[in-house]
Amino acid sequence: MPCRSSDGANHVTETVAAIVAAHRAGTVKPAQTVARSYQRIREHNDPAIFISLRDEADAIAEAERLTDPTLPLYSVPVAVKDNIDVKGLPTTAACPAYSYLPAQDATAVAKLRAAGAIIIGKTNLDQFATGLVGVRSPYGIPKNPVRADLVPGGSSSGSAVAVSAGLVPLALGTDTAGSGRVPAMLNNIVGLKPSLGLISNAGLVPACRTLDCISVFSLTVDDAVAALAAMAGPDGADPFSRDRPLAPLAAFPAKLTLGIPKAGQLIFFGDHAAEKAYGEACKRWQALGATLVEFDLEPFYETARLLYEGPWVAERYLVIRDLLASSPEAIHPVTREITIAGARPTAADTFAALYRLQALRRVADRTFAELDAIVLPTAPTVYSTAQVLANPIELNSRLGTYTNFVNLLDLCGLALPSAMRSDGAPFGITLLAPTGRDAKLASIGRVFHADTRLSIGSKALPQPSLAAVPAQAGSDEITIAVVGAHLSGMALNHELTTLDASLLEEAVTAPDYKLYRLDTTPPKPGMLRVEAGAGTSIKLELWAMSPAAFGKFVAAIPPPLSIGTVRLADGRQAKGFIVEPAAIAGAKDISAYGGWRTFMAEKVKG
Amino acid sequence: MPCRSSDGANHVTETVAAIVAAHRAGTVKPAQTVARSYQRIREHNDPAIFISLRDEADAIAEAERLTDPTLPLYSVPVAVKDNIDVKGLPTTAACPAYSYLPAQDATAVAKLRAAGAIIIGKTNLDQFATGLVGVRSPYGIPKNPVRADLVPGGSSSGSAVAVSAGLVPLALGTDTAGSGRVPAMLNNIVGLKPSLGLISNAGLVPACRTLDCISVFSLTVDDAVAALAAMAGPDGADPFSRDRPLAPLAAFPAKLTLGIPKAGQLIFFGDHAAEKAYGEACKRWQALGATLVEFDLEPFYETARLLYEGPWVAERYLVIRDLLASSPEAIHPVTREITIAGARPTAADTFAALYRLQALRRVADRTFAELDAIVLPTAPTVYSTAQVLANPIELNSRLGTYTNFVNLLDLCGLALPSAMRSDGAPFGITLLAPTGRDAKLASIGRVFHADTRLSIGSKALPQPSLAAVPAQAGSDEITIAVVGAHLSGMALNHELTTLDASLLEEAVTAPDYKLYRLDTTPPKPGMLRVEAGAGTSIKLELWAMSPAAFGKFVAAIPPPLSIGTVRLADGRQAKGFIVEPAAIAGAKDISAYGGWRTFMAEKVKG
Repeated sequence: MPCRSSDGANHVTETVAAIVAAHRAGTVKPAQTVARSYQRIREHNDPAIFISLRDEADAIAEAERLTDPTLPLYSVPVAVKDNIDVKGLPTTAACPAYSYLPAQDATAVAKLRAAGAIIIGKTNLDQFATGLVGVRSPYGIPKNPVRADLVPGGSSSGSAVAVSAGLVPLALGTDTAGSGRVPAMLNNIVGLKPSLGLISNAGLVPACRTLDCISVFSLTVDDAVAALAAMAGPDGADPFSRDRPLAPLAAFPAKLTLGIPKAGQLIFFGDHAAEKAYGEACKRWQALGATLVEFDLEPFYETARLLYEGPWVAERYLVIRDLLASSPEAIHPVTREITIAGARPTAADTFAALYRLQALRRVADRTFAELDAIVLPTAPTVYSTAQVLANPIELNSRLGTYTNFVNLLDLCGLALPSAMRSDGAPFGITLLAPTGRDAKLASIGRVFHADTRLSIGSKALPQPSLAAVPAQAGSDEITIAVVGAHLSGMALNHELTTLDASLLEEAVTAPDYKLYRLDTTPPKPGMLRVEAGAGTSIKLELWAMSPAAFGKFVAAIPPPLSIGTVRLADGRQAKGFIVEPAAIAGAKDISAYGGWRTFMAEKVKG
Repeated sequence: MPCRSSDGANHVTETVAAIVAAHRAGTVKPAQTVARSYQRIREHNDPAIFISLRDEADAIAEAERLTDPTLPLYSVPVAVKDNIDVKGLPTTAACPAYSYLPAQDATAVAKLRAAGAIIIGKTNLDQFATGLVGVRSPYGIPKNPVRADLVPGGSSSGSAVAVSAGLVPLALGTDTAGSGRVPAMLNNIVGLKPSLGLISNAGLVPACRTLDCISVFSLTVDDAVAALAAMAGPDGADPFSRDRPLAPLAAFPAKLTLGIPKAGQLIFFGDHAAEKAYGEACKRWQALGATLVEFDLEPFYETARLLYEGPWVAERYLVIRDLLASSPEAIHPVTREITIAGARPTAADTFAALYRLQALRRVADRTFAELDAIVLPTAPTVYSTAQVLANPIELNSRLGTYTNFVNLLDLCGLALPSAMRSDGAPFGITLLAPTGRDAKLASIGRVFHADTRLSIGSKALPQPSLAAVPAQAGSDEITIAVVGAHLSGMALNHELTTLDASLLEEAVTAPDYKLYRLDTTPPKPGMLRVEAGAGTSIKLELWAMSPAAFGKFVAAIPPPLSIGTVRLADGRQAKGFIVEPAAIAGAKDISAYGGWRTFMAEKVKG
C-alpha cells in the first residue's frame, strides 16, 4: 500500500527521492511502485504518450529481482523517449517505417538500469526529434495535462507529459535545439539539458550528431541530478562523449551574478503574461541574493539563425537519407519538408558556418566570463495545438527562440517551472552556462524552484522540502578544511569562491589541535596538531574544489601556513591548514574559543 | 665585425641563441647582424626565395632603434612566409592577382617584433600554401641548398631554404598538412608545428582555417622554442586561438615511451636509404633511453585519406572562390585543379567526414594514452624537381604520407634532422603528440638532434653545444621542492613523473631546517623549519607541474607531511614538504647528512 502522510499529501512517493526512500524504508515495495505506474498509465488513458509499453509482469519481475537498496534509483520507474534504444522494445523515432529492434540498451539506459531504474516504456516524440511542438507524430498528440488545449511541447512530448501526469517520476528526452526544455515548460516540470558529451549518445537515433544530447525530465531538480549522476561518464562507444566529472551539488552561493538580456532584446510575440512572468522570475532571483547584469543577447540570436539557415539540417538529412529516397511517403510531411532541405548546403557553406560559429562561441565565452549563468524564458509564449497545426513551421520556430542556440554554443541548460499564469498556462525559465557548469545550474536552480512554491507537474502536488546539500565532494574534487580567514564571510573567503570552490558542510576537528593567533594582515589563525586528545576540537568548514583550483589555492598560500591533513572529530580526514611551529613562538593560544569565528566575534566585542 | 671564434667556426653567430648572446655581449651590433642577412641574400643570389624584401636601410634602422637587450629575439633577422601579413610589404600568397597591402602585422609577426625580431622579407611558397613541394609558384622554385636537384619542399619553400642557407636564423612557415615539416627535412633544419591555436592565425591567408597553424623554421630546437614562446598566446582577433600555456623545456626524462608503427605499416616508396635512416633513428632513441612500443598506424593513414578525399578542400575553395570565378587563369594550374574540387562536396559529406574524424581522434587518444609521443619519418622519400614537375600531384601526395593526418587529429609536431644519407639527401624524423605537448616534444627532440651531431642547415655548420635546460617553471606551472622519497630515482619519484612533472634543478634550502627520519614505508624524511640560521641547508630538487597535477599531488600526500613554503639558500621560495612537529617526537635527526639521498646511501653502506 502506498505511503500516505498524515496531512493527506501523497507527494512523498511521487518524486524519485521519495520513492527510493520509501523502498529503502520498506514502507513501499519496489514492485508496488512499478505496478502503480502501469495502473496510472491505464487510468490516464492517453494512448499518444507511449509508443510502446513494456510487459508489466516483466517490469515487476525486474523490480522484484533488485536486491541492493543502496542503488541510487532503486526501483524507480522510468519512461524513455522512443529515439533511445531499450532492449526488448522497438526503436521507432516515431516513424514506423524506420523501426528496428535494438540488440542492446543505449549506454544511458544501461546505466539507469544499473542504478536500479525500471524501464516502463518508450514515449512519443516529434518524428526524428524534429520539432518543439509534439504534434508531428503518426502516433498521435499527447494531451497537455496542465492545459489540455496547449501543445505538449516537443520533440520529447511523451516523456514530458508522462512525468507531468505522474505516470513516472523520471523520463529521458533528447535535446538538439530545445527538445528537452520547451516540453518541460509546457508541462510544469524540470528539464535538464546536460553539457554535450556528459551522457553518452551511444544507442540514440541521431538528429544532429554534433549537437544532440540525452536530457532528463523530472518533478524536482534533485531528481534530475540523481538521474544525471547515474548516466554521466565517458563511453568508448560514443566518440562525442567526453570525460568530464560532474561536480556535486553545492549550497546557494553568497555571490551569484546572473545575466539578463539588454532592454528591448527579449521577444514574447505579444504574450504579456509571459513577459510579466519573466520579470517576476528576475525579481525572485534578486530576492534570493543574485546580482542581475545585462548582456547582449544578439550574438545568441545570430547563432540560432545560423542553426536554422545553416548547414546543420544536413545532419538530420544524413540520418534518413535512405528512407527519403526509398519511401518518402513514410515520413511526416512537415518533417520531410524540413529534412529534405538538408541535401542542399555545400561543404563550403558548412565550413563558412563553422567559422562564424567559432567566432560566436568566443563572444559567448566573453559574456560568460563575467557571469555565473544567464536566465532566459524557456519559451517566449505558448500555443494551442490548433494554432500549431494551422501554422506548423513558423510557430514551432518561435518556440525555439531561447533554446536554438544553446547546443551550438556548447552550453548546459536547466529549464525550471517559474510561474503558473492566470490563464492556466505554465511559464518557465532556463538557466544557461558554459559546458561543465551542470552542477552549478542545479545548485542554484533547485533553490529557485523551491522558492516558487509551485506545485509540481499537473497533479497539484506540493513540492517536497528541499533536502540539505549532500556534504561530499565530487569524484574528482578535493575537500579542504578551512579554519580561519577563509571561512564563509571572512576576509579571504573570496580566494575560495573565485576558484569556484563550493561549501560542503561545517565540521570540527578531532580534539588534537591548538589554535594560535598569528601576527598577519589580514588576521589569521595557525592550527597545530599536538598529541592525540591533548588539544581542542576546532570548528572548520569543508569546501570542495577541482584539482586545478586546489593546486592554485595551495600554491598561493604564504608561509608559515601549509596544507596537510586534518583529522575530523568523526574520524574522517581532509586536506587542511597547518602552521609551522617555528611561527608560533609567542603567539597567543586561542584554542579555548573553539574556532576563529568565535574568537573574532569576541575580539570585536572586547 | 662579426665575432669569429678561434677555431674558425662562426656558428656562434648563426643561431638565434648565439646572435642574441653576441648582441647582449656587445661583440656584434644588432645592425651588423641585419646587414649580414641582406649581404648573404645578395651573395646567395636565388631570386626564388623571397617574393619581397624589405628595404635594408629601414630594417637596419629598426635594429638600431632597439634599446632593450633583454628582448628574447634581440635583433634577430626573420623571414616570413608570404601568406602571413607584414605591414609595409604586400601579401601575395604567391598569387600576384590575390596580392594586397595589409594594414597591420599578423599577430604572430607583431609579437615577434615586440620580442626584438627584425622582419627582413616575405618568402616564396606553393601558391595558397597548397602543396608540399615548393614548385607551384609563379615566383620560381627556390633552389634546395642541401642538394640542388631536389625540390625545396613546400609549401613553406622560401622560409625553409632561407634558414638552411644561413640567410636568416629564423623563419615563419605555415602548416596545414605538412607545409612546416616536409621542407624542414628537405633542408636539414628544424620545423616546429605547434598545437593548433597556440599561435594566433590573425593576419594569415587561410588554407584550411580549421587546420592551419603558423610554424617555425630554425637551425636548432631551442631557437624554435624561443620563437614559439614569443608568439604563443590567446588572441581575440582569431576565434580559433586557444588559451594554452606553453610549458618550459625540461630535462630528458628518465622514462620515455615512444611509439613506432607496427611492422609492415611504414611506406618508403622503395627508398631503402630512407628506410635504413629511420631504423637508425629508432636505435638512437633507444640509445638515449627511450622505450619503443609498436602502435597501429592505420587509423592515422585513414585520417590522411579523409583529408584528401573528404570535404576539407572546400576550405581552400572558400578562400579563392571569387578569384576562381573572376580570373581562373591567374591561379597556378595545379592549384586551380585541386582547389576547384572544393566546390563539389556537400554539407552531408562534411558532417559524415566530421563524424568519422571524431571517431579517429578517439582512436588516436587511446594510442597516445600509452605513449609520450610517436616517431615517424618526416617524409617517406625525396624527389627531384624534375620528377615532381613530371608527376605533380601524385608525388606531392606521397610526400605527405606522414604529415597529412596531423592537424586533423589536433597533434603537435616537431620535425628534426636525423641523418645525411650517402646520396647527399637529408633524412628527418618527426615527433608527434596530442595538442599541448609542444614543450615535451622540444625537450626530447633537442637531445635527439644534438646526439646526431649533424651539421645544421646547408652550410656545414657544427651544432652549438646544448644549453642547460632553463630552470624555471612555465607561467602557469607551480614549482615544488622535494627533499625525500620523491627525489629522482627514489621510491616515490613516480608520483611526480606520472603527473607529467618535470625536473627543473637541484638546489638547497636556507640553513633554517632540520631533517628527521620518519618511521614510514617507504622510508621518508620529515623537514621542519627552525629559527632562521639555526638549522642546516638541506639538498632538494625543484620540479614543475601544472596546477591540476599539483592539486592531485598535494591531495594524495599522507600525514604527517604537508605542503608549505620552503626557503632556498639563494633567497627564493618554493612550495615544498613540511612535517608536523607532533610526528617527530623520538625521530632521528639526520640533518647532518645534508640531504635524504646521502643519508640513504650511507645507511646502505652501514
